Amino acid sequence: MHLNLFVHGRGHHEASWRHPLGTRQRLTDLDYYKHLASVAEKGLLDSLFLADALSMDGSIRHVATGGLEPITLVAALAGATSNIGLVATASTTYTEPFNLARQFASLDHISNGRIGWNIVTSWTQGAEANFGFEQQPPHAERYARAFEFLEVVTGLWNSWSDNAIVDDPASGLFLEPSLIRAIDHQGAHFRVKGPLNVPRSPQGYPVLFQAGSSAGGQRFAARYAEAVFTAQPDLASAQAFYRSLKEQTVAAGRRKEDIAILPGISPVIAASDREADALWRELNELTAVETGLARLSNRFGGHDFSHLPLDRPLSVDDFPDPHGVQAAQSRAVVITDLVRQQRPTLRELLHRLAGARGHFTLAGSPERIADTIQTWFEEGAADGFNLMPPILPALLETFVEEVVPLLQKRGLFRTHYEGTTLRDRYGLKRPSNPYF
Amino acid sequence: MHLNLFVHGRGHHEASWRHPLGTRQRLTDLDYYKHLASVAEKGLLDSLFLADALSMDGSIRHVATGGLEPITLVAALAGATSNIGLVATASTTYTEPFNLARQFASLDHISNGRIGWNIVTSWTQGAEANFGFEQQPPHAERYARAFEFLEVVTGLWNSWSDNAIVDDPASGLFLEPSLIRAIDHQGAHFRVKGPLNVPRSPQGYPVLFQAGSSAGGQRFAARYAEAVFTAQPDLASAQAFYRSLKEQTVAAGRRKEDIAILPGISPVIAASDREADALWRELNELTAVETGLARLSNRFGGHDFSHLPLDRPLSVDDFPDPHGVQAAQSRAVVITDLVRQQRPTLRELLHRLAGARGHFTLAGSPERIADTIQTWFEEGAADGFNLMPPILPALLETFVEEVVPLLQKRGLFRTHYEGTTLRDRYGLKRPSNPYF
Repeated sequence: MHLNLFVHGRGHHEASWRHPLGTRQRLTDLDYYKHLASVAEKGLLDSLFLADALSMDGSIRHVATGGLEPITLVAALAGATSNIGLVATASTTYTEPFNLARQFASLDHISNGRIGWNIVTSWTQGAEANFGFEQQPPHAERYARAFEFLEVVTGLWNSWSDNAIVDDPASGLFLEPSLIRAIDHQGAHFRVKGPLNVPRSPQGYPVLFQAGSSAGGQRFAARYAEAVFTAQPDLASAQAFYRSLKEQTVAAGRRKEDIAILPGISPVIAASDREADALWRELNELTAVETGLARLSNRFGGHDFSHLPLDRPLSVDDFPDPHGVQAAQSRAVVITDLVRQQRPTLRELLHRLAGARGHFTLAGSPERIADTIQTWFEEGAADGFNLMPPILPALLETFVEEVVPLLQKRGLFRTHYEGTTLRDRYGLKRPSNPYF
Repeated sequence: MHLNLFVHGRGHHEASWRHPLGTRQRLTDLDYYKHLASVAEKGLLDSLFLADALSMDGSIRHVATGGLEPITLVAALAGATSNIGLVATASTTYTEPFNLARQFASLDHISNGRIGWNIVTSWTQGAEANFGFEQQPPHAERYARAFEFLEVVTGLWNSWSDNAIVDDPASGLFLEPSLIRAIDHQGAHFRVKGPLNVPRSPQGYPVLFQAGSSAGGQRFAARYAEAVFTAQPDLASAQAFYRSLKEQTVAAGRRKEDIAILPGISPVIAASDREADALWRELNELTAVETGLARLSNRFGGHDFSHLPLDRPLSVDDFPDPHGVQAAQSRAVVITDLVRQQRPTLRELLHRLAGARGHFTLAGSPERIADTIQTWFEEGAADGFNLMPPILPALLETFVEEVVPLLQKRGLFRTHYEGTTLRDRYGLKRPSNPYF
């Protein structure tokens, strides 16, 4: 079983920073992230992951979020850790592929092969205006660009043979020119000649992570992703997603084990189920309705929900069609499905989303958390989990001290690190180079 | 006096990697750079600096160069050092200003205020084809873009008040929205709304370094640069450059002390002057004519020098007009001036350039090196130096062990670090924020 720590602000619950268990460390302080990484390494987690957005988070007024840029932060963490994998998000929508390929190849060298790239198309409102665009490119166009982007960057990462550097002082030959090649890419979105000016990296290239679960996102994942983060509201939907994405991956000519599926899980952990429920209630009582409404609106392309009463059960008629949403489409579908099935009030829905923004949230004792993880893992819903502690670092520390030992005792989780690269952690093979 | 270590391959002399004093460490190994940083910190140097180019170095076949990308590398070094400043090169020609502003703000937080940005316009042949361009933008156009780029990124770095983060759990207010602002930039090259999504950094923004010495480059430096790297072939030309750039800076409405001028110096150091001369000869004998010709050609926009005899004195008629060169124009001027004044043979010229690509190279005992540094510093040629050891790390270690103590004994160089930021090192003030 694989476990990835999703680092986010002072915790995934939007009120984490207001709770007495929350930290006061600044989100721009490298020491905060070093501590999280060291706790995750102590817990033998596979990797830690940093999400990203290319504009101000609209909810930052009332939520301790934002801080550092992921590529620079994982580089700094590479120097300060020795085992854990480091996964940085970067956008195919507003970045030059040559620059991105180069920074990630460099990161993979710097970390001795512990890097993953979480591939996103940028959907947050406001990003387009920071990059000279009048409006956000439509969903389909963003994915078309992402496919071509991957063709370019994998081409660049394979533009050097692993043996290109000869480094022979006696003859004076440092690099054998026949062992590097231009890629001469000419496509609808990019023209990139290459080669890259960084040697092929320890893992060949970074592990490719992906997080969009829309139909377009799944097609992309089936073709390229080696690990997938996904928000699934319950066991049944997680099983359906797991089955479907594995099938699509096989249909795309790859093996089931070439892709690891990692649903998000946000566990509120306390000594007993009762105390965990109380802690969850405390957190929800510290949220602001205004923040929840702004976030919900952002999920539905700016739709205004503020006229709805807080305490009557919702229906899908209160929501726009999620399939028309040009933002993070799959999350909008998850939310409307939840409304259809459970009929929460608006206040209840905002509390659900306050936990981990639509990811699976549960409260319980360490045993209950371990039971749920075991069920999802054994019943075809997950190859592992994207761990989203509601309060950081407190509930990460609890997870490592209380839940990890239970998973180990049950034979579900490693008891020591094996291998050295992130590919070793996830059991993924090093990509061969088709050109050399 | 300020001293900056210019890290470059296995040393600035192109044959360093073939000499017995050269290292065999891989240029993709973080430990190599960590060692260089620790030696430089032991020598109390102000900063270390990484140059960059956005295409394959044409001379890499016979020169140990290339390796890691500067932004990711300085981030990793920030986690592994505690005092030295870290200066990364990044291009205004082929990077999105929002992405660059964000990564450098993040670096400044990560390093607790030890970051500098060496601002370049990309001139190396081949970079354009990695970014979708048919040809390199002309010299003047690259600088026009650079000026606007600086307006955008300084605007983004000033888009947050230093006090914007309130972080008050009791009231639930994390950020005060009136203390951040959009920049709404609409220019000839960029449209960027902002604000940045990273808080204002410890130094306000990174120290702005610049290295182009053409007329356009000097205009840019006078307006924006806080420290300048420059290639000067001798004392007289260094004095003239120093005087002129300080005057231009004052004419641009700034103070003389707002800009530090750092000529490159590449010292071949041995126990005696005679042994140092011998070491320099050994290095020159290990160079390849083919490599030198390729580099010279690259300096003159691809002009072919290979038909010239190696051993007759050159004249300026052998060269194209350097002012028509669209690449690194100021370096082409330095080379033709040198030819006009000294009439070297082609072989001699290639040896001169092999030392440090046109920067001031000298050989001598530690006393002789210290004497020269003192003269340049005291006679109005330099506020400090861009130290370019011909062999790394060997001749950096010699400099720190043998030359630094002489400079300290003469009262020219610090004996301990004072302050914590790179601005403290260079005596530069933290920029005030015009908007808050």
